[in-house]
Amino acid sequence: MLSKPQIRAVTSLQQKKFRREHGLFIVEGAKSVTEFLRSDYRVQTIYHTAQAAAKLPKIPQNIKSVEIDEQALQRISALKTPQGVLALVAIPDHLPLTGDMLRKNFHLVLDDIQDPGNLGTIIRTADWFGLTRVICSMGSVDAYNPKTVQATMGSLARMEVHYTDIAKLVAHSPVPVFGAVLDGNPIYDTDFGVRGLVVLGNEGNGIGPAVLPHITHRVTIPRVGHAESLNVAISAALFCAELAREKGGA
Amino acid sequence: MLSKPQIRAVTSLQQKKFRREHGLFIVEGAKSVTEFLRSDYRVQTIYHTAQAAAKLPKIPQNIKSVEIDEQALQRISALKTPQGVLALVAIPDHLPLTGDMLRKNFHLVLDDIQDPGNLGTIIRTADWFGLTRVICSMGSVDAYNPKTVQATMGSLARMEVHYTDIAKLVAHSPVPVFGAVLDGNPIYDTDFGVRGLVVLGNEGNGIGPAVLPHITHRVTIPRVGHAESLNVAISAALFCAELAREKGGA
Repeated sequence: MLSKPQIRAVTSLQQKKFRREHGLFIVEGAKSVTEFLRSDYRVQTIYHTAQAAAKLPKIPQNIKSVEIDEQALQRISALKTPQGVLALVAIPDHLPLTGDMLRKNFHLVLDDIQDPGNLGTIIRTADWFGLTRVICSMGSVDAYNPKTVQATMGSLARMEVHYTDIAKLVAHSPVPVFGAVLDGNPIYDTDFGVRGLVVLGNEGNGIGPAVLPHITHRVTIPRVGHAESLNVAISAALFCAELAREKGGA
Repeated sequence: MLSKPQIRAVTSLQQKKFRREHGLFIVEGAKSVTEFLRSDYRVQTIYHTAQAAAKLPKIPQNIKSVEIDEQALQRISALKTPQGVLALVAIPDHLPLTGDMLRKNFHLVLDDIQDPGNLGTIIRTADWFGLTRVICSMGSVDAYNPKTVQATMGSLARMEVHYTDIAKLVAHSPVPVFGAVLDGNPIYDTDFGVRGLVVLGNEGNGIGPAVLPHITHRVTIPRVGHAESLNVAISAALFCAELAREKGGA
């Protein structure tokens, strides 16, 4: 069984403040936990039910593994329907972004994105399309929020998420800075080349005034119908697909 | 002020059972409510704060308009942050789908989609790309769920959402039936033509066994990276964009 302080220690990680204090975040579900075990992330503790143990790979000696019952798992889980496994994973220290890193591929840059589900879906989609880094403004939602982690469906294990002053980043970018706006050039006519930053704005306000002047290529997903805008994760996906398509020469 | 029974009558509409019983659903926010006022949907009642009244167009005489205070609005709202306006709108009776309707455009067909946010985002995206109907299996989440309505960002006012036996629909389809699968032909090489059904599967299980045999064109969004799958709203968007692109001759 878990003591009350132990339960509190885990559930406190649902709040950003305590995640930063302890340097840990929560990953749930055998599939996602397995992806983190196979990644460069450092898994610290795994809580699992007897039943769910069979769905996990062999757990290395240096990782604390604790068998608990369904009730205890329910208490520490951030999910409505807990999935039998919950791991505490160390928040990584990524190497600072350099010009060399940025020159190697495309990178998504998110300007104050607020919805954890949107960020998670963007990370998952970026992983599908072969990107390896997502760069967030300091005002963006936390990538280690349980809802974000869940929405990445394990892709966070393969992605670096950076938090930085993106106005400074785009102002000194060594690569083209594409921006998703409502009145730019059609995405289908845009020559993306093989590297660049792709900036996506906040859900309500789009790309902010500190970043907008540094967009070198204003790009729009042409509208055929009537919706006023697209969801930001949808826009991100349409850009990712276009980048992959151009690189693939399709 | 609103009486307790009045408050209960509105909040009960957060549940599908009572939505069907009363034939009403909830729309919140001045922008969305305005879109419904301008649509063919029948708005029955509008609750609004004094402050929010200015954001609404002139309300026709036949629509009940009730000014309430912030506290009362908080009590009837399904949102964490109520937006000053809440309308009760009649669930429409759409004309049954006919072959002629299906021959006029592309239609998304959703096989047991479960997440209300996903369905809402799909409706919003379909509206952006000029589709006018989304067809859901009977086991799909309700389009009039407040979370779905919210995620459509007003696009539901312009879209018909049908619920029908989709296995029967695809079995007798007068147009090609495209299906999003993981092992089909690349979407970029697929000739969609100018009409057809595009089937998207359940979040966890994809397209079900009753529908799969009737897919005439198995289509895949090529994966470059490592994620195991794409979110269903993302897949839907990539298909919608491709259809719009082909029709536009881009």
